Amino acid sequence: MRENSAKAKWRAGEVTHGAWLSVPSSFSAEIMAHQGFDWITVDMQHGLLDYQVAVQMLQAISQTATVPFVRVPWNEPGIIGKMLDAGAYGVIIPMVNSPEEAQAAVAACRYFPDGARSFGPARASYYGGADYFGGANREIAVIPMVETKQAVARLDEILSVPGIDAVYVGPADLSITLGLPPGMDNGGAFEEARKAIAAACKRHGVTAGIHASAALAAKHAAAGYQMITISSDSGSIAAGAARDLKTARDQAPQGQPVYQ
Amino acid sequence: MRENSAKAKWRAGEVTHGAWLSVPSSFSAEIMAHQGFDWITVDMQHGLLDYQVAVQMLQAISQTATVPFVRVPWNEPGIIGKMLDAGAYGVIIPMVNSPEEAQAAVAACRYFPDGARSFGPARASYYGGADYFGGANREIAVIPMVETKQAVARLDEILSVPGIDAVYVGPADLSITLGLPPGMDNGGAFEEARKAIAAACKRHGVTAGIHASAALAAKHAAAGYQMITISSDSGSIAAGAARDLKTARDQAPQGQPVYQ
Amino acid sequence: MRENSAKAKWRAGEVTHGAWLSVPSSFSAEIMAHQGFDWITVDMQHGLLDYQVAVQMLQAISQTATVPFVRVPWNEPGIIGKMLDAGAYGVIIPMVNSPEEAQAAVAACRYFPDGARSFGPARASYYGGADYFGGANREIAVIPMVETKQAVARLDEILSVPGIDAVYVGPADLSITLGLPPGMDNGGAFEEARKAIAAACKRHGVTAGIHASAALAAKHAAAGYQMITISSDSGSIAAGAARDLKTARDQAPQGQPVYQ
Amino acid sequence: MRENSAKAKWRAGEVTHGAWLSVPSSFSAEIMAHQGFDWITVDMQHGLLDYQVAVQMLQAISQTATVPFVRVPWNEPGIIGKMLDAGAYGVIIPMVNSPEEAQAAVAACRYFPDGARSFGPARASYYGGADYFGGANREIAVIPMVETKQAVARLDEILSVPGIDAVYVGPADLSITLGLPPGMDNGGAFEEARKAIAAACKRHGVTAGIHASAALAAKHAAAGYQMITISSDSGSIAAGAARDLKTARDQAPQGQPVYQ
Amino acid sequence: MRENSAKAKWRAGEVTHGAWLSVPSSFSAEIMAHQGFDWITVDMQHGLLDYQVAVQMLQAISQTATVPFVRVPWNEPGIIGKMLDAGAYGVIIPMVNSPEEAQAAVAACRYFPDGARSFGPARASYYGGADYFGGANREIAVIPMVETKQAVARLDEILSVPGIDAVYVGPADLSITLGLPPGMDNGGAFEEARKAIAAACKRHGVTAGIHASAALAAKHAAAGYQMITISSDSGSIAAGAARDLKTARDQAPQGQPVYQ
Amino acid sequence: MRENSAKAKWRAGEVTHGAWLSVPSSFSAEIMAHQGFDWITVDMQHGLLDYQVAVQMLQAISQTATVPFVRVPWNEPGIIGKMLDAGAYGVIIPMVNSPEEAQAAVAACRYFPDGARSFGPARASYYGGADYFGGANREIAVIPMVETKQAVARLDEILSVPGIDAVYVGPADLSITLGLPPGMDNGGAFEEARKAIAAACKRHGVTAGIHASAALAAKHAAAGYQMITISSDSGSIAAGAARDLKTARDQAPQGQPVYQ
Repeated sequence: MRENSAKAKWRAGEVTHGAWLSVPSSFSAEIMAHQGFDWITVDMQHGLLDYQVAVQMLQAISQTATVPFVRVPWNEPGIIGKMLDAGAYGVIIPMVNSPEEAQAAVAACRYFPDGARSFGPARASYYGGADYFGGANREIAVIPMVETKQAVARLDEILSVPGIDAVYVGPADLSITLGLPPGMDNGGAFEEARKAIAAACKRHGVTAGIHASAALAAKHAAAGYQMITISSDSGSIAAGAARDLKTARDQAPQGQPVYQ
Repeated sequence: MRENSAKAKWRAGEVTHGAWLSVPSSFSAEIMAHQGFDWITVDMQHGLLDYQVAVQMLQAISQTATVPFVRVPWNEPGIIGKMLDAGAYGVIIPMVNSPEEAQAAVAACRYFPDGARSFGPARASYYGGADYFGGANREIAVIPMVETKQAVARLDEILSVPGIDAVYVGPADLSITLGLPPGMDNGGAFEEARKAIAAACKRHGVTAGIHASAALAAKHAAAGYQMITISSDSGSIAAGAARDLKTARDQAPQGQPVYQ
Repeated sequence: MRENSAKAKWRAGEVTHGAWLSVPSSFSAEIMAHQGFDWITVDMQHGLLDYQVAVQMLQAISQTATVPFVRVPWNEPGIIGKMLDAGAYGVIIPMVNSPEEAQAAVAACRYFPDGARSFGPARASYYGGADYFGGANREIAVIPMVETKQAVARLDEILSVPGIDAVYVGPADLSITLGLPPGMDNGGAFEEARKAIAAACKRHGVTAGIHASAALAAKHAAAGYQMITISSDSGSIAAGAARDLKTARDQAPQGQPVYQ
Repeated sequence: MRENSAKAKWRAGEVTHGAWLSVPSSFSAEIMAHQGFDWITVDMQHGLLDYQVAVQMLQAISQTATVPFVRVPWNEPGIIGKMLDAGAYGVIIPMVNSPEEAQAAVAACRYFPDGARSFGPARASYYGGADYFGGANREIAVIPMVETKQAVARLDEILSVPGIDAVYVGPADLSITLGLPPGMDNGGAFEEARKAIAAACKRHGVTAGIHASAALAAKHAAAGYQMITISSDSGSIAAGAARDLKTARDQAPQGQPVYQ
Repeated sequence: MRENSAKAKWRAGEVTHGAWLSVPSSFSAEIMAHQGFDWITVDMQHGLLDYQVAVQMLQAISQTATVPFVRVPWNEPGIIGKMLDAGAYGVIIPMVNSPEEAQAAVAACRYFPDGARSFGPARASYYGGADYFGGANREIAVIPMVETKQAVARLDEILSVPGIDAVYVGPADLSITLGLPPGMDNGGAFEEARKAIAAACKRHGVTAGIHASAALAAKHAAAGYQMITISSDSGSIAAGAARDLKTARDQAPQGQPVYQ
Repeated sequence: MRENSAKAKWRAGEVTHGAWLSVPSSFSAEIMAHQGFDWITVDMQHGLLDYQVAVQMLQAISQTATVPFVRVPWNEPGIIGKMLDAGAYGVIIPMVNSPEEAQAAVAACRYFPDGARSFGPARASYYGGADYFGGANREIAVIPMVETKQAVARLDEILSVPGIDAVYVGPADLSITLGLPPGMDNGGAFEEARKAIAAACKRHGVTAGIHASAALAAKHAAAGYQMITISSDSGSIAAGAARDLKTARDQAPQGQPVYQ
């Protein structure tokens, strides 16, 4: 079975940089996949996309060596199973706030006896290889999100659940439940939690991941985060357009007749 | 009927800045539409998109004041009519190399007696307003592309065809037919042509347009171009991802264990 | 091969009533197909729909005895062939203004030696039956539109082209080219043309068809039209919504507090 | 943040009239959105549509001042969050039969501390505005359905749950659980429940809503209902087609040769 | 209401042969539907398809007498209701491991008083007929899957739940939870379970079904299975392509110059 | 630029075996792409598919070493350019019956000075590589179809047009224009033409291709054909289903009660 190179890098202690897809298109996914990220996440929760186009995006990513991850909309076994069968090599599960929820997430991702995933890797066996059943429990990354005060409070319990490969911090939601605005780089209680999560992950041998930006990557890496999101399709579109408009209009102010 | 604000600005001698859409998604179109461009072109020629998603993209753009243009795949009356009925307020037509081809383009865009467009503005009458038939020949922008050596040679004839609002220079194709690489800012024969087109447009009272970038906008405006493409969805995605990866990796080199 | 019951009724001198589909959905198509029209036209010209959803609409219609027609965007053999292969049992071709254009339309619809259609009825042979090749030239209805002053002027020539089963009057375009507003029931030159077309069809043994409404059906039937469009999905939606709003607001005026 | 004008009207004691969308198409949605309803509901439960086209329908509606609501398929936080992030300004949740289920519905719709919605308003922040986070808990309408005997029995408990803006009566399901046929205007136990719900809503300061028709609008308004569905896309198509066929055939009976 | 001919055959003691659809296309569905299977299952669990295309596939199948079944991704009332409203005449529900889960499955499929299905058969009433409400609880097949050791252990309890028409054995998952590889025809504990399930079904008057192949059909029929899957779209594509390549290359070995 | 391995094999005198895709799905395309064909053709002419899904199919194929070809619906530069920009490495053009039509096909496929293709390889440059412009005229295969009596009559002229890499025989259409039924293996005039085409190709140094089956592959290879279609998605589905039904029913006849 094809190796999950992201998990291999985590085991080797390396930092990995990933990207986030919110635009429902296999073309934007393909553009992103050719840039050289370690992994790319198709975001089915806040991204504007659902199952059918997500599959096409996974196919687009699979043209490259970048590892395809998916964030599912919710901790629900039906959609987790569908995305794994479609070839996701990692599943990010939102709002996992208790060890019971973490166990449910693992159960949905692993075949018996490690879990209760149903067998039928229709596309996954083309992407992963003929021995998919033998290797899936080993290669697929199970990645619950830690994004609430409650989850932080029960972090040791959550991280003790067998089968969790990484946890992924959602800074906006974590900030909100800590009484802060939904920022990516809040200080105070958020900063404490950010460090505490990395430390707990180190204790439990679980990879620490976080939603971030290129500017924050070094800071997170220094804190021990190995799975860092640094770019997104929708973010690049908005930022690029704004920058281009500013460049053009600073030079040739809009609304001023120039052609006489 | 809703006024075509891009044409109004051209008449007022103003420069307009537009954007280009190649990603088949109404979400990326919506993001772009909220940035404040004067107009946005849904590119059905080289963009990775066809009719059905193009309509959804026009709907997305129509939430804003940005004027929706379409580049059709070819100078063919079927698709030109379909895009106008779908609410395009301007049509960019590739590879118009002769006055006959320019006349065909106009005929496909204008109702009798100015042309031979078939009546049925199914969505256009919602976007444009109830008096669409009365105003369409006035508000819709007909924009042939000038992108070959042959077209430049016959430019005065082409610009003499009644009903042409603007011409749009395709720098890559024009460069190729001039024996140059497909660049956006070639010198030599391309530079001569670029200036000659602007001058001819001035003579004929036709707006000069050009495919460009934010960095080239001021240069083109100075030369008399009033319709300048400065940004694109796919370009921003690729550039943003490359920049983010460089930022992150310059700070924390990939492949080096940082978490021990 | 499955008989084209619409053509059979025309041969029997019966009037047929059809419907028009502009909404790109196989569900609205299915609703319409269950109402009992003689035929239904999937409108690829002014309707907001393209090939892929048109096929799904044909599948939806094919659950019933209603005969599936398609109006193609233009007199172009590629799309005509695609729609026939997808199971259209009649093709309405816009803007046929000369006998040459009529011949091209027939050629695109008929197998050799009656025409030059390419063989590959991928879905059509499921809908039409295993002997599709043997019966297609007989059952498929070829229906050029007569919708310009020029076409009316050359009507006898057009109707003399072998292989034309019916012509379909587009009242809006015909009105426009006669200098009238794009109405369905103009008098004057339009009324003359309307009668002349029916008369010419009778002389040539070709079925006369016309885009109309339920209210106009009897008038057209009396004039000899046997193929009459009387209803449309988009028209019913708009009219139904307006009527419902009026009903509700006449009874309980909007904006007036009623609940205290 | 953009104001929810439907909620404003409810607060002002006004009756609002809305429409229902079951056809999976952004074109039919756009037609409906231009008719002037106070709000329009994209029905993901019984409508023939799922997430991806629902987003396009929300984009279509967002071209107008009509407020976009969504009925989700079930009281499940994943899909509720997705629709809110896609720009729904109100969420109708089926089969809420207990205060616990009502609390779950509210939790899925409101950010902390009012609920547990996850942050990521990818499209919603374009529709609602840059200060979406600050205003969402105030502007978004949370609308559980009351459509079973059990829900009516526990209505006071359900209406006591903080954060409920309105309840929406499903007459068919309510009738069924009361032992009646699935009608819109049953008498007996249904009529009693219909009045009891309005009265309970008045006691609790919650808006009463109901699935209805234009003909029933005045009756419901008189009973205190302020959120009344009076029209639907699929209903108008079926009714319009049936009416048109009757009109045409009454005048020119089908099957009778008229053209000799 | 249209009779469910598959259920009628089961009642008559007949074996039925069905097919499985994993390819998201209404064209492949239509091809399969014309082959003469008793029923066809649109597989939303392991198949590469979601709601919107599943509806189109149901429409395609509905052109024929083959009965349309759906396997939902999970035992979740939202998606079960949506598929029934879309016209599924049978629902296969994965991973039903307890009588409580079986009851939930039945509740989602049956109207009150047999269950709690919400009323709104938008497409189903076109397929099933105008009296859909009166007949749905009788004609719709509720088919939980028995595919784990736990389910087999509680089989009598599960089969005692009122409203279950058939159970469907998933050999791969059942094998896995029995400690065997995910095969279709394992011996040992699987073989015992296979026989025990058929025997239990006979005791309870419930139809036994199983995922199989054409080669295994006779064996399963002999054991009492009446609902046997014997073919699949994706399986036929892969097998056909492999066979064709072998045929061609055995005759003309690839890589050997033959044309000189 | 990525080498076109199919063209390399043709140059080396090898026979290549390809497959045909008519089902509009990137999943069936992916299944086919993993079987090991030399090339696969996405059929936009008779296949039930259009541009948008064709792009997804090209992405699916591009995960493998199989070379992606496209058959366009017609010899029209708009669609030819779109498919090349989408990454097609070969274009099969229907109904090329004269050298003029062959020249038009070449012009649409080649950049100046070899043709007049417009520059904008949006996806093609990801698939083909950064030096796409430099290599495209060399690597892209231009493949007109020879499928009429007229084309055979003018074959030497057609094959003399510079830029043609291969011609592809359409046996059904060729048979029809020769007065034969639309078969794949007719004798008589078809057999003569089949041999004459191969001989002419040999004279002109052009690869001979033909639509066929696995059973006919050796016969065609022996005649000098190097590009042979031997399998199709839709064909395998229909044949597999028919075979499976026969297998199952021969063993356990349908309609006979077996479970008592």
